[in-house]
Amino acid sequence: MADINVSHSNIRASRVNGTTVYNTAGEQLGTVEDVVIGKRDGKVKYAIMSFGGFLGIGEEYHPLPWDTLDYDTQKDGYTVSVTREQLEGGPRYDTSNEPDWEDEAYHRSLYSHYGLTYPAI
Amino acid sequence: MADINVSHSNIRASRVNGTTVYNTAGEQLGTVEDVVIGKRDGKVKYAIMSFGGFLGIGEEYHPLPWDTLDYDTQKDGYTVSVTREQLEGGPRYDTSNEPDWEDEAYHRSLYSHYGLTYPAI
Repeated sequence: MADINVSHSNIRASRVNGTTVYNTAGEQLGTVEDVVIGKRDGKVKYAIMSFGGFLGIGEEYHPLPWDTLDYDTQKDGYTVSVTREQLEGGPRYDTSNEPDWEDEAYHRSLYSHYGLTYPAI
Repeated sequence: MADINVSHSNIRASRVNGTTVYNTAGEQLGTVEDVVIGKRDGKVKYAIMSFGGFLGIGEEYHPLPWDTLDYDTQKDGYTVSVTREQLEGGPRYDTSNEPDWEDEAYHRSLYSHYGLTYPAI
């Protein structure tokens, strides 16, 4: 996150959808489906990733804390610094059971799963 | 922005669209059409507001720096601390001339118009 030259690299949130997500080996993992933002503080908390599914059937969504993502200007995509095991065992949902984004316990479980400290209030 | 109890008040960015925006007198001004986020820093830079138009024809979009918005938990909407004159004379665009969100000069003009200091890089 040290490269300050992309500070003007902004995008409409609705167009983040579809951005490719890579692992640190450069392999394509999935795409960003949406981002979750704080209504008040205006910070992006999570990128919601999908890893496939077919025509949306069986598709699962994995919320990743924003800090696990690193924007790669060359690829115009994100690299995530999490392991496949973390992703496969990670919190996920499908369209029938979208989580309550106001539930602190759920947020804590997400941060904990990815080995991150839950941000101080 | 002092109320810390809404720190868990999050929303999917795609669902911010349609949130009502009020002036400080409590009058409805328009709705949020989208938000602009930093690809890297994950901060919401602007709320893009629309003030009407008819069936999208003639609709204009006004990007407001995020700091001009205050989330009102009671209304589940945003109050903007800008004057009608600022809005009416403010930078706007329609679907035919969407701005370049990577253009620093444009960002500076937005902050300047609303009397805000352009954030340090």
